[in-house]
Amino acid sequence: MLQKTVTLKARPRGFHLITQEILDNLPELSSVKAGLAHIHILHTSASLTLNENADPTVRVDFESWFDRAIPENAPYYQHTMEGSDDMPAHLKASLLGSGVLVPVRDGRFCLGTWQGIYLGEHRDHGGARKIVVTVLE
Amino acid sequence: MLQKTVTLKARPRGFHLITQEILDNLPELSSVKAGLAHIHILHTSASLTLNENADPTVRVDFESWFDRAIPENAPYYQHTMEGSDDMPAHLKASLLGSGVLVPVRDGRFCLGTWQGIYLGEHRDHGGARKIVVTVLE
Amino acid sequence: MLQKTVTLKARPRGFHLITQEILDNLPELSSVKAGLAHIHILHTSASLTLNENADPTVRVDFESWFDRAIPENAPYYQHTMEGSDDMPAHLKASLLGSGVLVPVRDGRFCLGTWQGIYLGEHRDHGGARKIVVTVLE
Repeated sequence: MLQKTVTLKARPRGFHLITQEILDNLPELSSVKAGLAHIHILHTSASLTLNENADPTVRVDFESWFDRAIPENAPYYQHTMEGSDDMPAHLKASLLGSGVLVPVRDGRFCLGTWQGIYLGEHRDHGGARKIVVTVLE
Repeated sequence: MLQKTVTLKARPRGFHLITQEILDNLPELSSVKAGLAHIHILHTSASLTLNENADPTVRVDFESWFDRAIPENAPYYQHTMEGSDDMPAHLKASLLGSGVLVPVRDGRFCLGTWQGIYLGEHRDHGGARKIVVTVLE
Repeated sequence: MLQKTVTLKARPRGFHLITQEILDNLPELSSVKAGLAHIHILHTSASLTLNENADPTVRVDFESWFDRAIPENAPYYQHTMEGSDDMPAHLKASLLGSGVLVPVRDGRFCLGTWQGIYLGEHRDHGGARKIVVTVLE
């Protein structure tokens, strides 16, 4: 069992591929024969999800769709004190989820060819986000 | 490895912070040095998610957004026999998810400062919901 | 710890109950006293979720709602090279999730009476999808 907290570099609002940054912080993974890696984000206005790791326009379209489906300044929002990007960020975080669980095999993430880990940064200025990585064998 | 079934008290339709009720039913957690706690709801019209534990208007706005995004009585619904709140409840349950996975460290949930566990009660009269808690070390 | 890759039979676009097909490929489950089973799909245009296992119109209504919420040919999509069903498939995959985590007890999935595992096939011709099943005790 391995568990560690990692601080990701700050990123602008949008969706970002962070698979390599996680691996760079997880050299211990190479000795895990088989198991599960759980990556959990310690925030309620950012999210983690798995999706296409190749064409960057997928991540652009994610931002476009989510911004339309979950608008800022909806007239019925009551939670508005922290800015117009805040309540949509909470909704996006729960729709996408706070964590991903990735199979591990032979010291590597066992993902599909086209799967990568996305950070959904849903605030305009979210800053450096912290994650907790737990690997169970 | 610890696994137990817990019956939550019944709650009205909407989103509810249940972190403390889970902890009250999980005294064994204090002896877990590090691992993962999985909380799974045994129902298809209620959900579990992580979000802001402070301002209760976040939970009000969750209900407002989800009720607009997933309307009752959509003309194309075929699954209508169990009431107008039923099919939307199934959709909300899958969008939010049936379980949350929480890192555990030093006998406590290792959540962000502002993270709590929400029960999404998506039926008008859902009654007492059952969850299964599994803790792996 | 048990981990294996399973190829599901190809299914048409829509939502499909696959609990039994997974169990048919997992005879080893019967010897697991208690734990967690993780089922992960190795694709970014299909999803796994838990929902009602009885009335098949729930799965029809899932397809209806998701097709309306996440339209094809939205004018703002940039990722359009792989067909009009492709970008919506990526969004559906992340909204529903790439995996489900199911408690295991006494050699069986510990699900609610009405819970089953859905495959969301979001492409018109997705083909045979591969999953990785990991069981931790």
